[in-house]
Formats: sequence, structure tokens, C-alpha cells
Amino acid sequence: MKAAILTIGDEILYGQTIDTNSAFLAQQLIEMGHDPSYRETVGDEIEIVEESIVKLTRNYQLVISTGGLGPTHDDVTKKAICRAFKRNLVLFDDVLKFIEERYKSRNRDMPAAVQSQALLPQGSRALKNQWGTAPGIMIEQKGNIFVAFPGVPYEMKNLFIHELKPLLPPSEDDSVITFKRLRTSGIVESVMYEKLKELLASNETVKLAFLPGYMGVDLRLTVKEKPRSEALELIADFEEKLREKIGKYIYAEEETSISEVIADMLKERKQILSVAESCTGGLLAGMLTDIPGSSEYFERGVVSYSNQAKTDLLGVPQTLIEKHGAVSSEVAVAMAQGVLNSAKTDYALSITGIAGPTGGTNEKPVGTTWIGLASKDGAVTKEFHFATDREINRQRAATAALNMLRLHLLGELKI
Amino acid sequence: MKAAILTIGDEILYGQTIDTNSAFLAQQLIEMGHDPSYRETVGDEIEIVEESIVKLTRNYQLVISTGGLGPTHDDVTKKAICRAFKRNLVLFDDVLKFIEERYKSRNRDMPAAVQSQALLPQGSRALKNQWGTAPGIMIEQKGNIFVAFPGVPYEMKNLFIHELKPLLPPSEDDSVITFKRLRTSGIVESVMYEKLKELLASNETVKLAFLPGYMGVDLRLTVKEKPRSEALELIADFEEKLREKIGKYIYAEEETSISEVIADMLKERKQILSVAESCTGGLLAGMLTDIPGSSEYFERGVVSYSNQAKTDLLGVPQTLIEKHGAVSSEVAVAMAQGVLNSAKTDYALSITGIAGPTGGTNEKPVGTTWIGLASKDGAVTKEFHFATDREINRQRAATAALNMLRLHLLGELKI
Repeated sequence: MKAAILTIGDEILYGQTIDTNSAFLAQQLIEMGHDPSYRETVGDEIEIVEESIVKLTRNYQLVISTGGLGPTHDDVTKKAICRAFKRNLVLFDDVLKFIEERYKSRNRDMPAAVQSQALLPQGSRALKNQWGTAPGIMIEQKGNIFVAFPGVPYEMKNLFIHELKPLLPPSEDDSVITFKRLRTSGIVESVMYEKLKELLASNETVKLAFLPGYMGVDLRLTVKEKPRSEALELIADFEEKLREKIGKYIYAEEETSISEVIADMLKERKQILSVAESCTGGLLAGMLTDIPGSSEYFERGVVSYSNQAKTDLLGVPQTLIEKHGAVSSEVAVAMAQGVLNSAKTDYALSITGIAGPTGGTNEKPVGTTWIGLASKDGAVTKEFHFATDREINRQRAATAALNMLRLHLLGELKI
Repeated sequence: MKAAILTIGDEILYGQTIDTNSAFLAQQLIEMGHDPSYRETVGDEIEIVEESIVKLTRNYQLVISTGGLGPTHDDVTKKAICRAFKRNLVLFDDVLKFIEERYKSRNRDMPAAVQSQALLPQGSRALKNQWGTAPGIMIEQKGNIFVAFPGVPYEMKNLFIHELKPLLPPSEDDSVITFKRLRTSGIVESVMYEKLKELLASNETVKLAFLPGYMGVDLRLTVKEKPRSEALELIADFEEKLREKIGKYIYAEEETSISEVIADMLKERKQILSVAESCTGGLLAGMLTDIPGSSEYFERGVVSYSNQAKTDLLGVPQTLIEKHGAVSSEVAVAMAQGVLNSAKTDYALSITGIAGPTGGTNEKPVGTTWIGLASKDGAVTKEFHFATDREINRQRAATAALNMLRLHLLGELKI
């Protein structure tokens, strides 16, 4: 179906909130074979929202709006829907009961304002929201579908996946857009481009885009206007050739993160990991514990920010720090071995570096980072020179550490 | 001026790239006193882009587009502009020279495709791009202004600030939008709404919006169509009344994060902090070390994910864990005091909870979290019941811990 996405809210229009909902919805619709071909954003004004809904539902088979469904006075979407579809707000008893029970089960009093969440346009279908209070609203009219979601991304995503998706008709179109994303780490865009140049010249049907980010370069393979099965075959052929050239840099597909890759590799091997970090300040541990069930492979982390902490918690000798500096191969080894010994894990990663913006010297400029990997067989370290931005340096360091462990587990990096 | 922002590009429409350009442009326009009142996104199709340009330039005094100005076949913006304004592409000699010189000065050969960047719609003004190759395009017609920027955020931002901004007419000062953002933690939207209801009813000129997020609810105060100085006075008056009702929940203004608030409070007091965390797995330490100069107030963090780590690194007795469970007030106290004693800091925060999705029991469901705060005077703990989403629970727990320390430093929470 031809679809339009309508984002409602002054905070989006005025740039105070970045609109991430539209991207999520577009990706989901494409995956289902629909075509998100238009998007617009309007502010919290009833007349303008009404006008948009009228216009979009006339021109698109599926219109999804986000935002403006909260219980406060500045949430105007429901009123605008009523005007656009010429309906009244009525109380949905089952929705009210559902909301009341959610509060009851959490032993909380329901604030009076929340009651209004059960007032919905007559004849609409309520999409029950167990992730918040505002239900989604679905209206079918003249074969077209209009859906309104609350703007909170977590609620919107869950409502889409669990409540709306099962209700949407399958797409009839066989000329869909097909994508595949491959994620790389440890190679920069221009070097990768050189390696792939010939391959790119010989291929016309699969379009390749380079999407560089702080965590590495993603590659997007696109085939348009082919039936899905044919497109997937074309992409698979192209991917095979691509992997021949740059296979070892590819750590994952689609949205999978490098920490998820490490999690899977460790769980498969029934091995566990501990970490010791300075400049990344908990970021590495945070990435590893971001994943449900992380206690299966993650034992502990030490954020040894001060030199004293390195000695107390990791047994790094003060003399070693004095001799080589806290940012050195020797200290990286001692940190990794320190946490390995106390945690008794299979592997330990360590990071010590100068994240910036201050703390750099001529010899060790901002961005200088040593990463260590230890196991019962010993330890290996690598030096990195990142750039000048503190946040990017921290993210790149944590990613590089995980990539070192990945390469070791694959037999590409020896300890 | 009433302004519209037009985003052009399949990668935005299909959700592979998040549109951050529009938010930047909107903020800049508001700061200059203009009114970005509409936004739309279309794909790389000439007819559709043409249609958008025609429609928007008819309805808005200022229209800014981003994207589709590159040298490849899928960049259609220039052709669409020509059709919309009925003009031809002509070669701009000065632009070609400018681009050639940029390549020369970097000792690089200019790829043939880049030449086409000097072909621009007749009668337009070129905004020279020293941050990339595609110039911006400005067309004035019947008193309205149309501007096209390339989509690369870094180029677009620089072109806006350095090339377009000096050319835009000043706004007539009586129609500006003025904002202030206040950030709260520790109170939910509906409860806050109840507390502010009367105040909202008595006020018409200052519009208040609730912006709930995982870290707390932000409040946006808006005054429209008043001179800036008058608007700021109105906002200050309203803010005073607002603070009377919910002052203690407000931790910051505008973009300041709660960790920045804590950083400033600790630096001012010359005090230092250490943390011990389980379910947040490094997130709390990560937030505290996100800020340049964090070693001034942050000493160490322990991510005691396993029970063994709690004993090894924090001295939490195994018997205590067995008796009360790892998620308990007693263990939260022992964790905070454990890291306080080893780090010898002024304060220590601890977090132990069930982030989910698994690990919950009837007695302690997913989301149950104990947070501890210790100082030389002893320790205090608080129990929280967050929801079911792992990532959100982790973020809310870290924020709640920082808010506990903030309240203590303000004398609102006793140890």
C-alpha cells in the first residue's frame, strides 16, 4: 500500500526533538512490502492537524500519525481526528477498564487526567497500550486506513509491532524495495572503496551505499522494483562477491550490534568475559550488559578512573604507572590481567586512553588509546589513534575493544 | 517569516537515515525570529520534488530544502527546481573556478562528475560550499525565498550559518517564538499535570507543553507573537509560579543533563563520587564520565554483575546476599558503603535491580530496583518499581540515582 507518515507536535516541528519515529515506521512498512512514499510534520494546532489528516487520507491508502495523544491540554490529535472524520469522542469502557487494571496491578492510584485516555473517536478501533496509557486509534473508511499512535517511541514501536501489524493487510505489489545492510569495523570508507571499486563497476542491479558512522562503516545493498524473492537472490550473489573482498571486516548484518555478536559468540562457546576500563568510563560494560541475559557471559567490570583505583581494584603497580604512564601497553596488559585474575573469566578486555578534550601531550595526543585482551594464554595489546572528539573517541574505543575480541575468537588475532 | 522545510531523499523517506537536518534548521530559524511552521519529506523523484517546491513556495515566505544536490543520477533536486521555477541550468563560471581551486589546493584531481556541480538554475544565487562540492542555491521570486542545501549535515550546517544567514532578512520582531525548557525528574506527567492544572487554567499567554522521556518529563514554555524581551518577561513570571508548585523536581534548564548538574554541584563543593552498579552495568559510570573533566569529581566505578564480584570488589558478605537477595535495601547499602570505603570518596551511589526481561519473581517483579547513597554519615536507600523494558529500566535507574544525590546535595534528602 502507498503509505504516508504524519508527525504531530511542536517539539518536532521546532527541532527540540529529533523525529526517529518516522524512520522506524518507514522501515517496518518496507519490510512488510508497503511503500512509505510521503512524510509530513505539523504543529499542535487542531485545524492544521485536521487539514493534514483529511488531505493524507484522501491521497494514501494507509496513513500513520504519531504524537499528540497524551492526556494534557496540548494534545490535540484526538480532536483533530474527530473533526476530520466527523465523529464524536465516546468513552470506551473496555479501554478504561484495561487502563485501570494496569494501575491496579502496579499498586498505583490512577491520576484523574488519565481517564480521558479512554475517550476515543466513535467507531474507531482501540489499539490497547500496555506500554503506556494512550491507546492507538485505528479508523477504516472507504478502504483506506488511518492510524494514530502516541509519540513516545517505546510505546509507538510496541503498538506498531504487537497491535497494528497483525491487522494490516498484506501488500499485493510484487515490485517492492529490498534492502540488506552489512556492518563493518576496523576499515575506513576510502580504503574499502578502493577494494570494492572493480566490483562496483561490474554491477548495475544491486546499488551499494556506504554509510560511515562512529562505530564503523555500514554497507547498504538495495534492489528496487523486483519481486522480493528475485531481489534477495541478486543481493545474495552480490554479497558473496563482496565478502570475498572484505569479509573479515563484516561483523554483522542489519541492526545487530557488535556487542550482540560478542554475546552470541561467547554464549556459544560457554565462555565469560570481564572488563577494566578508564577513558571509556563504563561504556564498554554498558554495551555488553545492554543485552538481555548478559549475566551468562559478563562477570564484572571495573571503571578504574583514578590511578589509585587501578591499583586497588586491579593490582596495577603504582611503579608501572609511574614508569610508562597510565596510557601505555604495559598498563593495558596489567589492567586486563588484573581483572582476569580476580574475576576468573576466560577473557578480559582493558581500555586506557586519552578521550579528550584535555589531557593530551605531544607524545600522547588526545585520542591515543591502548586496548588489551587477556586470557590464560597471556595478553595482547593494540594502540589506536582516534580523533579529537571525546564522545566519538569513547565509542570508537569500546567498539575497537569488542572487535579485538571478535577477531581473536575467529582466530584472526593471536594472544 | 513563515517557513517550511523540505527534506528530499529516499534514504530519509525509507528510514535508513534519521533526519537531523530539519531539527537544526528549525532551531536556527526560531533563534533568528522566523517561524518554521511546516515540514515535509519526499523521495528522489523529479515530478514529486517539483510539485512540493511549487506548493511550498506558494504558501511560505521562506522554503529551505536539503538533499538531492549530489553529482549522481539519483540527485534530482536541481532538475526539479528548474521545472518548478521554469528556468534552465547554466554553467556558473565562478562556481566552477571555486571548485577547481579547492581540488587544486588539496593536490587532488577533480573527478569529471564534479563539474556538473557548477551547473545551476539561471538567475539563482550560488552559496559557495567550502565544506564539500555541491553549492547551495538561493532563488528569490515574488518576495519569497527558496533555498536548496546539500543533505550532508556538516555541509548543510556550515552553508546555513556562514552563507545563508547573512542574506536572510531580519524578522519583524513582533512575531517571534520564544521558548524555555525546564527539565524534571522524579515525577510522572499526569501527577505533574494535576499539580499545575489551576496554574494552566489561569494562564493564556504562556503555553506549557509536557515532553515525557525516559529520563524524566521536560516542560516547554512557549510565547508566540510577542517581541522577544516581552516574551522573556512573561516566561520568567510564569516560571516563578511553576517553581512554587514543582520546584524541587526541576533539575536543569534547556539541554543540560542531570549528570552535568551533578558534575557542577560536586565540582563547586570540591567533592568526589564513586559508584557501584549491577543492573545498570556501567551506564551510571558512563553518564558521569561522559563529561569533559570528569576525573575532577569521579573516582571509580564497580560493575558488580555477579554476586562474586559484589563480594570481591565491594566486600558485600555472601551471607547478606543469601539472606536478603541481591536486589535488596541491605545489599544496596553494602554496595554503596563498600565502594565508598575503598575509593575514599565523599559520596557513593549504588544500584541493584532486575532490569529484565527475565529474572523477575512475584515478590520482586522486573523493574524492582534498590538505589543506595552513602557518605561518611551513613547510607540511605530507596526502592523503585520501573516498568518491563530493559533499556528503559536501566536508563531510569541511572537517572534516579543521580536525582537522589541531587536531592541530598540540596538538603531535600537526608542520609
